[in-house]
Order: sequence, then C-alpha cells, then structure tokens
Amino acid sequence: MSKLLNVKIVGIGKVVGSKIMTSNELGRKMGIKDDWIERASGVYSRHYIDKAIGESALTLGTKAAQLALEDANLHVSDIDCIIGASGSPLQAIPCAAALFQRELGLETSGISCFDVDTTCYSFPLALFIASNLVQTNVYKKILIISADTPSPTLDIAEREVRALFGDGAAAVVVTQTPEGEQSKVHHFKLNTYSEGADYTAIKGGGTLKPPNDLETKPEDNVFQMQGKKVFKTAVRYLKPFLEDLEEETGLTNSDYKFIVPHQTSKNGMEILRKYGFGKDRVANHLRDHGNCIAASIPMVFHDYIKSGQIQRGDTVLLFGTSAGLSLGALSITY
Amino acid sequence: MSKLLNVKIVGIGKVVGSKIMTSNELGRKMGIKDDWIERASGVYSRHYIDKAIGESALTLGTKAAQLALEDANLHVSDIDCIIGASGSPLQAIPCAAALFQRELGLETSGISCFDVDTTCYSFPLALFIASNLVQTNVYKKILIISADTPSPTLDIAEREVRALFGDGAAAVVVTQTPEGEQSKVHHFKLNTYSEGADYTAIKGGGTLKPPNDLETKPEDNVFQMQGKKVFKTAVRYLKPFLEDLEEETGLTNSDYKFIVPHQTSKNGMEILRKYGFGKDRVANHLRDHGNCIAASIPMVFHDYIKSGQIQRGDTVLLFGTSAGLSLGALSITY
Repeated sequence: MSKLLNVKIVGIGKVVGSKIMTSNELGRKMGIKDDWIERASGVYSRHYIDKAIGESALTLGTKAAQLALEDANLHVSDIDCIIGASGSPLQAIPCAAALFQRELGLETSGISCFDVDTTCYSFPLALFIASNLVQTNVYKKILIISADTPSPTLDIAEREVRALFGDGAAAVVVTQTPEGEQSKVHHFKLNTYSEGADYTAIKGGGTLKPPNDLETKPEDNVFQMQGKKVFKTAVRYLKPFLEDLEEETGLTNSDYKFIVPHQTSKNGMEILRKYGFGKDRVANHLRDHGNCIAASIPMVFHDYIKSGQIQRGDTVLLFGTSAGLSLGALSITY
Repeated sequence: MSKLLNVKIVGIGKVVGSKIMTSNELGRKMGIKDDWIERASGVYSRHYIDKAIGESALTLGTKAAQLALEDANLHVSDIDCIIGASGSPLQAIPCAAALFQRELGLETSGISCFDVDTTCYSFPLALFIASNLVQTNVYKKILIISADTPSPTLDIAEREVRALFGDGAAAVVVTQTPEGEQSKVHHFKLNTYSEGADYTAIKGGGTLKPPNDLETKPEDNVFQMQGKKVFKTAVRYLKPFLEDLEEETGLTNSDYKFIVPHQTSKNGMEILRKYGFGKDRVANHLRDHGNCIAASIPMVFHDYIKSGQIQRGDTVLLFGTSAGLSLGALSITY
C-alpha cells in the first residue's frame, strides 16, 4: 500500500471551444459522404475554438482556471503555484503555466509556475505531483490547468485523427484535506513503453525537427497516430497493469464508483468492460466532446461531478493511455 | 525551515556537441569583424552538435545518461523513472523522457517517463520533484536528463542570442541517502513573474502559433531575447528573493561552498558578487560552453564535482533565472 496523501480537489472548472462541429459537417469538409466518422470514432460532435473571436488554448485554460477558483470560493491571489498540464505545448518557451499566470493577472505575484508533461496523462501526473507538494507544505493551494486545442492543426491530418479530436480545457485547485473530511490521493502508477513512441507523435515543434528547417515537412508538425498499433499495444499491457495496480493499492475494480478514463476512442473505452468496468461505471463524454488530449480526463471528471454522479467521498480511478506510449492510473477519493 | 529530504545524487554525466565554435569563427559567419561577441557575452567558445554525424539533443542526453549511470555504478535496468528536464522541447509529442527511454534500450521496461519544464530552471525543478518521489518511496532510482541543442535554430536569431548559446546535456541519478551519509535536499524556491514572459520566448512550436500556420513567421520559431529587460527585471527581484530564501532556509550565503548558477551571461553571473558570492564561489564555465539553456546548471555542477571543487558534504545553491520569467533556488548538500 502506498502512502495516502491528504489532498482535496476544492474546485474544478471546464471550458470548451465555442464552435460545435458535428461529424456530418466535418464529413462534408473532408469529402466523406457517409457516416464513417461517427461510426469509426464514436464522436457525434466536438467543440472547436473560434479563432475569429480570439479563442485559443490560452483563453480556454484561463477561463477554466477562473471557474475552478470560483467553484472553490477562492480568489486568484490565494493560489501559490500554477502547474501547466497540457498534452500539446502552447508555445515552445516559456512554460504554459507562466502564460496562464499572466492571463490571470498574476504577472507580478511571483507565484511558482511550471509544466509537467506525459502527453494525454499529464493531468493526473500533475495532480499527483501537486498532492506531494501540498502534503509536504511546499505549497498550500495549487492550480492545475490542462488546455488542448488541436483543431487548427488538423487540416492535413489523417482522417482518423481529424475525426477524433476536439478542443477544451479544465482546471482544478487542490489543497490539504480539512480535518475530518475523507478526500485523499491514494496511488499513482505510470508505465511507459517507448516501443510505441512513434505510434502517436508530433515529430516537429522542437530541436529534433525545428519548424524553420527545410528538411522538416508539414506533416512532421501534425499529430500522427497509428491507431491500431496504439490499441493493440495498450491492450497487451493493460491486464498486467491493472493486476499490479490492484496489488499495489489493495483496491479491486469494485472499490471504484467510476473509472474516469482518457477519452481515447470508442474502442479504447469499450475495452474497459473486459476488466470489470461496465458501461455504467465508465465516465464518458466522447460522443459530444471527442478526444481533447490532456484536457479530456479533467473535463469528463468535471462533468460527472457537476451532474452529481461523482460525489464527495467517492473513490474513482483516473486512468489513461497516452503518447509515449504510457498507461497511467491515479486512484483518489474525491 | 523546510523539511529536509534524504536524497543523494549518486551519479552525474555530461556531454557537449562535438564541434567547437570559437567566437572568432562565429563572428566571421555573422559578418562581425571585431571581438564584439566575446566582449558582449563572455563566451570565447561554445560546443555545437554535428548533425552530419547524427548528433542531436537525443544523442547527447542519452550519452549523458549513460555516463551518469556508469558514475553511479548502476545498470540502466536499475532505474525506475526517467524525468526529462530540458529547456527546449525535443519534439512536441511525446515527452522527451520517453524518447530517451527508447534510446537507452528500455522500450519494453515500462518504467515511468515524464517531463517537467520551467525552461532554464527545469533541472533543479526536476531534482526537487524527484527528491519528493524518492523520499516517499514512489521511486527508488530516478534518472534526470537535461539536453538542449539550440545551435541549428540560431541562424536567423539576433546576434545577442547567437553569441550566447551552445549545445550540451547532463544527467544525474538520485536515490535515498544511505544511512550515515550527509547528502540532502534542503529547500526549493521558484518565483515566476510573467510580466517578463515575452522577454525570452519561442512563440512558435505549439498550438498558439502552429508551425504550419501561414500567419506564423519564421522568427516566431526562433528564440527571442530582450537581454536588457531580462537582466533589469531579474535584478529588481533578486534581492528580496535571496532575503526570503535566507529566512526560509536558515542558511546565509556563507553556508554555501558554491553557488551553481544558470550560465546566463557574463553580466548575469557577475551580479551575484553584490549578494556575497565572490567570483571564487560562483561555478562558471560560460567562457568555453556558453549558455546551454536547462543543461547549463547540471553541466557546470558536473564540472565542479569532477574537478574536486565540490565534494561530498558540501552545501551548494543551484540558482537560476529562466524564461517565464522565473527566479529559482534549490539548496542541497551534495
């Protein structure tokens, strides 16, 4: 058993891009006439940012942070650390957290800003790191922001990728759990199998294939996914991963009210049934959000909290596969 | 006083690009005839990767990791976590740690991989996070890798930037401190002032200015620095930062055998004298390395350990300014 961290999510907020893109409309744009998109991806509609009104990962993440603070009854100046936990960079330098700090009006506050990244599983990683830093009193109130807006980059992506992704953001505030309350972070597990590092990748955007390099092709700057290979590799490692998790936590799948998975794809979520998570216990908003990269887990977590399906005292499993290729699990009592 | 973490750096390795670029030669390339570069930057020569023989941030970081493991008398399979701590991304997705894992031959190992980022101060941040995770037994032996190779992107950069930067990598392995030894991590402090977020930036490389977007200009993909503004802002915040640090740690500047600063620039390091760190106590290899972004702090730390100037039991301060704009300090007993 791992050491329990007395940490509580005291506020959560979520924002999506203001344009709704149905699969029908997207199919027309892509020149696909039948209902292939919805059948293949399980996505009926997804939200896209509207660049014409200035929407971006920065504006969505900032708004989500403001909603999380409001939800926590806190003022922005109460925060003493911001962790950026997006799956795709906002810009190469500096870290996203610093950009959010400025948007939140904290540009002279001095509060700590840094990012953590394990692509789609960045949010639970950030939540676990934040929990350690709150537990040891390094910080009192940490704001975590995940914001991913892939839509403007998808024009030349393969149709499988284009079908799946949407734009959104979510944020939480975490503090120590007040005396007498049950909120806890139980256990973190992250297994990375880089044999799959090329299965989901944007090979550009950094020093290996710099944007201005003539050898860098436009497709290097676009998300590339070999969906079947990801699925096959993840499934191969999933059973031992969940068995080890059970042994390490002492919790079986029936101890979780919900599994809150990364919204990978229809198949990626249906497979969880095989491991004891029936459809009614799998948090899912893929149909009208698509896959929003690292923002997906906190976004769907938000929706299940706000609808009352996840309540204080419920134990849930934040689970995900991500580029790397990684499998991640964080068990918490909300 | 903060809680001391019983954590030890058991191995350290460093690698530089194999080409040496003197300021004279660089000046000729840039069409600058006098010795402006060395006078302005304090850099006589810096190392560049040789792309013709396949060198990159990936190969440099991997080699540094292998040297750190050798230095620790460990096999690569002893590691249970890799943290990427570069200042510039290797590629947008996945995280650098996963790419290093594959290069190290650990692609089916499942060991955890993630990145942390606060640009030039990413290494001490990673060391502090690793220390927390080692102290609480989440991981036993963590490998941290910082690798930055800006040289191929500098062609169209301003001359101040072009003069300053070099390519290098460093890595460490951290574990719990064995019984009876003194190694410790004392205190972490990171103050971010995003009023300076634009003073040092690469605005491209992410979703805000995607590489393929026609509105993204080539200069958006290049490091831009307003050196005077960085310096002025950092100096304005430095005095209260160091005073707070002293109060929080109970350590005065005379308790540190060395300050190990980010190798920002000649001026950026000389200013430390004003705060009690005379030249003989400031770790400095700027003259023949330049500024290697996040790799600089562990690289110069490596050089002072290997030369015997920093020994077991010495207390040192890993200090830096970074894009964000941030000031960071991590006090450790080596």
